[in-house]
Amino acid sequence: MGVVTGPARAAGAGGRQGPKQDRSRATRQRLLEAAVSCLAERGWAGSTVSVVAERAGVSRGAAQHHFPTREDLFTAAVEYVAEQRSRALRALPARTRPETVAALVDLYTGPLFRAALHLWVAASDEPQLRERVTELEARVGRETHRIAVDLLAADESRPGVRETVQGLLDMARGLGLANLLTDDSARRDRVVAQWGRIVEQALGGDG
Amino acid sequence: MGVVTGPARAAGAGGRQGPKQDRSRATRQRLLEAAVSCLAERGWAGSTVSVVAERAGVSRGAAQHHFPTREDLFTAAVEYVAEQRSRALRALPARTRPETVAALVDLYTGPLFRAALHLWVAASDEPQLRERVTELEARVGRETHRIAVDLLAADESRPGVRETVQGLLDMARGLGLANLLTDDSARRDRVVAQWGRIVEQALGGDG
Repeated sequence: MGVVTGPARAAGAGGRQGPKQDRSRATRQRLLEAAVSCLAERGWAGSTVSVVAERAGVSRGAAQHHFPTREDLFTAAVEYVAEQRSRALRALPARTRPETVAALVDLYTGPLFRAALHLWVAASDEPQLRERVTELEARVGRETHRIAVDLLAADESRPGVRETVQGLLDMARGLGLANLLTDDSARRDRVVAQWGRIVEQALGGDG
Repeated sequence: MGVVTGPARAAGAGGRQGPKQDRSRATRQRLLEAAVSCLAERGWAGSTVSVVAERAGVSRGAAQHHFPTREDLFTAAVEYVAEQRSRALRALPARTRPETVAALVDLYTGPLFRAALHLWVAASDEPQLRERVTELEARVGRETHRIAVDLLAADESRPGVRETVQGLLDMARGLGLANLLTDDSARRDRVVAQWGRIVEQALGGDG
């Protein structure tokens, strides 16, 4: 995994942790999860450290001990949940390419994508957020690309394969956006079925 | 064109218009263009009727005569500029499918997409905006799909062709999102070149 090191680093370097560290890690995790759901539901304007602390059942002081600024909290939260999703995806059993296309698209239709979208759009107007979200997006994007290449058994040494995978992830992101205001799942299922076939053909490898 | 009738309706039914109507239409147009650039640059939180009126060099009273509410102004603005873009796209000379793919993706990388994105994301949190933006998105989406089908000479009676075009437009939207915080044009050009070839093959028709 490697690239997304935020939460692991904060929880301490080794595995030998006392009850105090366990409690601290649990508090941190509750804050991160509350931050993502808050951002997904209320947007950036409605998401502050206080609101998240209350939602997580944590004092404001404790929240600020873990995350000194609003930017710290929300960028860490999106990164944390993105890493959880990546891990879950890697842990799934082997699947066909069309099934993988569907699983990749699923990454972009839940609360995590909604939260990340709010953060990106806020970052486009707020300089103090922009640089951090840009770095975060690059790290998460690279990791998602690596996972997609592995799961699709895509041979990136062949010309065009890298761009085929990239375009597929761009499509998944666009499908996430189309799902923002209305339930787009019926249309999305048909698009994913067709694009599963297209990607299978474009990647080739056994034909 | 037909579907997007807002600005035409407001400017009067016929072609016989006096100088007063001309002035009124010019004011309206200035407001709409200022609203889109304001939304693109400052986001929903920074976009009010007053700010747009000042930017357009129009009094606040005149702006409110044309657009009684903030929601009226910004939804009309996104629709107006979307219609202008559609018209420009239809007016272009015939082109190859890969060239058409590139032109379609271009729709999603300028200030109009940025403005629309701010409006969508704001609408996901604000009920009074949500319904109007949902309708607007559906109208503009249908029109863009029709244009794409025409320009790509796609035969939608063939199975999968409709979903191929839809997925392509989803990809274009995702590429627009990837361009929000950084200049993604170098990567995008490579993705567009590869997917131009893939779409050409998927649509077939002469091979």
